Amino acid sequence: MAPQKGTLLSYRPDIQVLDATLRDGGLVNSFYFTDEFVKKLYKANVDAGVDYMEFGYKASKELFDVNKFGKWKFCDEESIRGIVGDNDTDMKISVMADVGRTDLEHDILDRKDSVIDLVRVATYINTIPAAIDMAEYCKRKGYETSINIMAVSTSNDKDVQQALELIGQSSVDMIYIVDSYGSMYPEQIRSLAEMHTEVGQKYNKKIGVHAHNNQQMAFANTIEATAMGVSMLDATMSGMGRGAGNCAMEALMGFLKNPKYKITPVLRFVQEEMLKLKAEGLVWGYDIPYLLTGILNVHPRSAIDCVKQGNTDYVEFYKELWDKEC
Amino acid sequence: MAPQKGTLLSYRPDIQVLDATLRDGGLVNSFYFTDEFVKKLYKANVDAGVDYMEFGYKASKELFDVNKFGKWKFCDEESIRGIVGDNDTDMKISVMADVGRTDLEHDILDRKDSVIDLVRVATYINTIPAAIDMAEYCKRKGYETSINIMAVSTSNDKDVQQALELIGQSSVDMIYIVDSYGSMYPEQIRSLAEMHTEVGQKYNKKIGVHAHNNQQMAFANTIEATAMGVSMLDATMSGMGRGAGNCAMEALMGFLKNPKYKITPVLRFVQEEMLKLKAEGLVWGYDIPYLLTGILNVHPRSAIDCVKQGNTDYVEFYKELWDKEC
Repeated sequence: MAPQKGTLLSYRPDIQVLDATLRDGGLVNSFYFTDEFVKKLYKANVDAGVDYMEFGYKASKELFDVNKFGKWKFCDEESIRGIVGDNDTDMKISVMADVGRTDLEHDILDRKDSVIDLVRVATYINTIPAAIDMAEYCKRKGYETSINIMAVSTSNDKDVQQALELIGQSSVDMIYIVDSYGSMYPEQIRSLAEMHTEVGQKYNKKIGVHAHNNQQMAFANTIEATAMGVSMLDATMSGMGRGAGNCAMEALMGFLKNPKYKITPVLRFVQEEMLKLKAEGLVWGYDIPYLLTGILNVHPRSAIDCVKQGNTDYVEFYKELWDKEC
Repeated sequence: MAPQKGTLLSYRPDIQVLDATLRDGGLVNSFYFTDEFVKKLYKANVDAGVDYMEFGYKASKELFDVNKFGKWKFCDEESIRGIVGDNDTDMKISVMADVGRTDLEHDILDRKDSVIDLVRVATYINTIPAAIDMAEYCKRKGYETSINIMAVSTSNDKDVQQALELIGQSSVDMIYIVDSYGSMYPEQIRSLAEMHTEVGQKYNKKIGVHAHNNQQMAFANTIEATAMGVSMLDATMSGMGRGAGNCAMEALMGFLKNPKYKITPVLRFVQEEMLKLKAEGLVWGYDIPYLLTGILNVHPRSAIDCVKQGNTDYVEFYKELWDKEC
């Protein structure tokens, strides 16, 4: 469906919401979620009208030690089925596959043998051709596909334009804007969204957005992109995700006007499950070190370390960051 | 100066920043800040290039018991001078006066006898004529003046338009958009900003914005208003303010392009002073109950109670809020 625009009172039936709690949140706890948590999350998402639930990564077991990560790093077919059975709901299921970190031949079954509906290929801009190859492979297997261009804030417009043309000409169904560093302001997101939705219109691709909250812009950027015609919206429960986290599902559900979306199941899940994770010591969400990597448009890794160490010497952290990264 | 627009790389010399930490933050701790804190804040603001520092309210001592609040609820001349002496800096000093809660005749000295530069009159839309009277009084005394229209999200455009015309025709220097309930999305702020800057252009008034962070939109809305020509920007250290708090000064300093603004003094103040306030148990900042009052566009008072009580039954809170307020 071609990108559409909307106002605050109308709603666009083309808008769809993807819950990425297990996948981006898994980066916080190495994917060790209990089955009970995942089952409740699945139910909450179904009840809330969420369109896609992402279960995690399809990571290569050659590259990653299965003993060092929870099962949602790998998303075996039987793991997902253990939660959803045959997924007899309207909600679709997605997984993410990183370029260069996935054994496609081994780990991607034929669509007819899988409960997975959508494979999202995550790539940096320099590996777009490999990402397209992966997505085409998954398409041939029968899946919906997306390509998620990470860290787009560090690429220049000409390169992004070229990447979009390449993806446009492929069989890929969706193209995602990913503000990995949480460095973008609404003005920039609108401009990128415009560039993406033009290609979407030309090639009939859905455009998505995946925002990070380093500058407390994840929700704002998500809805600003939406106003420009972006229609696949990533969110996570309580914004759980690497570092500063993502657009919070509860905020997004409060904003969307389509009556199919319900905030109450999300609130219930947050109060019953997400608060527990926080109480158990998992840490994510806006904090000043993330703000600073966001301002400088660099990877949040040093901010994650800073927060983990409980280092609150922000002045020194910022100076070091500047010396190291700029 | 007539409102101007800007892009991300340019900067507009008309933009000015007002630190409202003591005033809006004072609503968190009943204005009990230590002199040491206030002196350091004053120095941090001067070093950061902040244009105005608001010391608190000029509240009537007839109406409010001086034993129940810290001195920044009243902002006596000698209290301010105890911090700033004659304020021999480029930074100006402001206080806020609420309509109906201020003894103008008693508490507002002649400008020549005061270190205060700006009196901001806070009003709801139904008391605009009284607010204009107050502002005219302060103007005659020699002060810069602003009128801050609170809870503008609950007023209809026609009323706001009429209020703006009235203020436009007065001697008031600045008109503030105040999203008291933190309920507005960037799209709405842009539209309000447009309405305000048109009046600003017509009558040569500066337009300001004071945002709340209920939906994590305080910073986003502040910079979106700025892009529309708004040029007085309120922020507070660590976003300290009632309930969900305000636009964080550290985020704003990371965004503004005018080289006179420095983030380092702000970061230093945050790490040395604001973290201490949090450690001592003061609570402010984004939390789900505030999100919910923001979504419903209602006063945050019940959310403040909810957070204070440690009540995390968001589903029940939302239901009650809906029953009570909608």
